[in-house]
Amino acid sequence: MRTAVFYHAGCPVCLGAEQMVADAIDHSKYQVEIVHLGENSDHIGDAETAGVKSVPALVLNNQVFHINFGASLEDLK
Amino acid sequence: MRTAVFYHAGCPVCLGAEQMVADAIDHSKYQVEIVHLGENSDHIGDAETAGVKSVPALVLNNQVFHINFGASLEDLK
Repeated sequence: MRTAVFYHAGCPVCLGAEQMVADAIDHSKYQVEIVHLGENSDHIGDAETAGVKSVPALVLNNQVFHINFGASLEDLK
Repeated sequence: MRTAVFYHAGCPVCLGAEQMVADAIDHSKYQVEIVHLGENSDHIGDAETAGVKSVPALVLNNQVFHINFGASLEDLK
């Protein structure tokens, strides 16, 4: 089982993308982990290391997909 | 079966996102249609109507998700 990490910050744009991720990702292949960077700012470093520049973002197999634009990671620090 | 439409233009950013869409979308729920707007510019109008501003983009249940940024729709006209 591979892991898909969805980073968000609770913003409206994030919520729409979260629904998409929850609904459309193949859960037989991916275990989806959802990280709220607003509430867990200690994970911002992990997100940056993975290449995340803004939220919402989905990291699949070390590839980052920025989905629409909610907030810059810089603004969450 | 719902339809997911993935619009792209063959750009490198598009190809990465296309792989993600092909691999990670739950194909038991969604029939994925892939539209290459560079080769099928007559579909640019449909994409615009759906709310697509740039490619790659994924339209699920009338919601548009712009995934990273490859090219503006304006530049494909």
